Amino acid sequence: MEKFRIRTSRRQEMVDITRFVEESVRKAGVKRGLCMVYCPHTTGAVTINEGADPDVASDILMGLGRLVPDGLPFGHREGNADAHLKASLIGPSENLIVCDGRLALGTWQKIFFCEFDGPRERTVCMELIPGGEI
Amino acid sequence: MEKFRIRTSRRQEMVDITRFVEESVRKAGVKRGLCMVYCPHTTGAVTINEGADPDVASDILMGLGRLVPDGLPFGHREGNADAHLKASLIGPSENLIVCDGRLALGTWQKIFFCEFDGPRERTVCMELIPGGEI
Amino acid sequence: MEKFRIRTSRRQEMVDITRFVEESVRKAGVKRGLCMVYCPHTTGAVTINEGADPDVASDILMGLGRLVPDGLPFGHREGNADAHLKASLIGPSENLIVCDGRLALGTWQKIFFCEFDGPRERTVCMELIPGGEI
Repeated sequence: MEKFRIRTSRRQEMVDITRFVEESVRKAGVKRGLCMVYCPHTTGAVTINEGADPDVASDILMGLGRLVPDGLPFGHREGNADAHLKASLIGPSENLIVCDGRLALGTWQKIFFCEFDGPRERTVCMELIPGGEI
Repeated sequence: MEKFRIRTSRRQEMVDITRFVEESVRKAGVKRGLCMVYCPHTTGAVTINEGADPDVASDILMGLGRLVPDGLPFGHREGNADAHLKASLIGPSENLIVCDGRLALGTWQKIFFCEFDGPRERTVCMELIPGGEI
Repeated sequence: MEKFRIRTSRRQEMVDITRFVEESVRKAGVKRGLCMVYCPHTTGAVTINEGADPDVASDILMGLGRLVPDGLPFGHREGNADAHLKASLIGPSENLIVCDGRLALGTWQKIFFCEFDGPRERTVCMELIPGGEI
């Protein structure tokens, strides 16, 4: 398992972490297999989406904010229940295929850490599973 | 593949299954790799979120109920179309990293089976893939 | 990594791809392990849900349309920001357990490619990781 740290700067933010993941895959020298990117926090998540136009990331955060408005009658007293729900909607991890020693990302895909209750210092975990039989 | 059974007691419920998953990892004796927790049902799901305050789980269920209200004009005649949509929003599985023979969960993270159309007897599947090259 | 192509025929559509995935597992001859189904597009996704009643799939698309209405003030100028958000809500991949040489799907489960911005020609990627220690 490898870990890397991120410092987020707003309450909600999508941080492109593709280059960290790509670097780890390159260093590990694994040619084929699965790469797992895992968020150990309960108010953050990992997603894959378009990275070329930064509006896509901000639209996702805006849209999630409409889905999960602040005014819901949440019981959790820390004031961040919206962030917990968003974390479960997006999910704590993404898996990627490693092929020819590289992440098999689509043309427009980037990997994002989603901050839903920042700003904070966050950790993202990674694991590579060698394999690939097809 | 290992399976374990859960009996849910309400229509919607989040059941902490962390100890079942941890026990399986311990018994298997795998030191590094990936642990997959999989729900074979189409009106249930698996998520990872905060387990310390039970309000977080009930807030997630309440919030999902606001997102997917009963009154939508669903075509599916079994009356549980909301549960199918929630299942796809949360997703049927979660993957965890196994490190030093243990699940690499964050401090506040617990693994939950999400019941969206109970009460029922449910099965959760698990598989461990050894590996880890980083 | 294996790839297969799909041609979608509507803007939003859920395409049952179970038989493609099953065939790849059979051909690969892997007895135990993990099968990853991955969508390399940012306006598509992969989910698992009921395949017996086609109304379930159309209810999921209808429900997602209510969650993410067209009228939101999106910044992304291509007019498909709703599709990007839906892609992150459903997620780009699903993992399945392979057991006794077959996908360990539940009785009612089918694997779907979710088109959110079609019609288009799409690619779905697959990778099999042998293993299984429990």
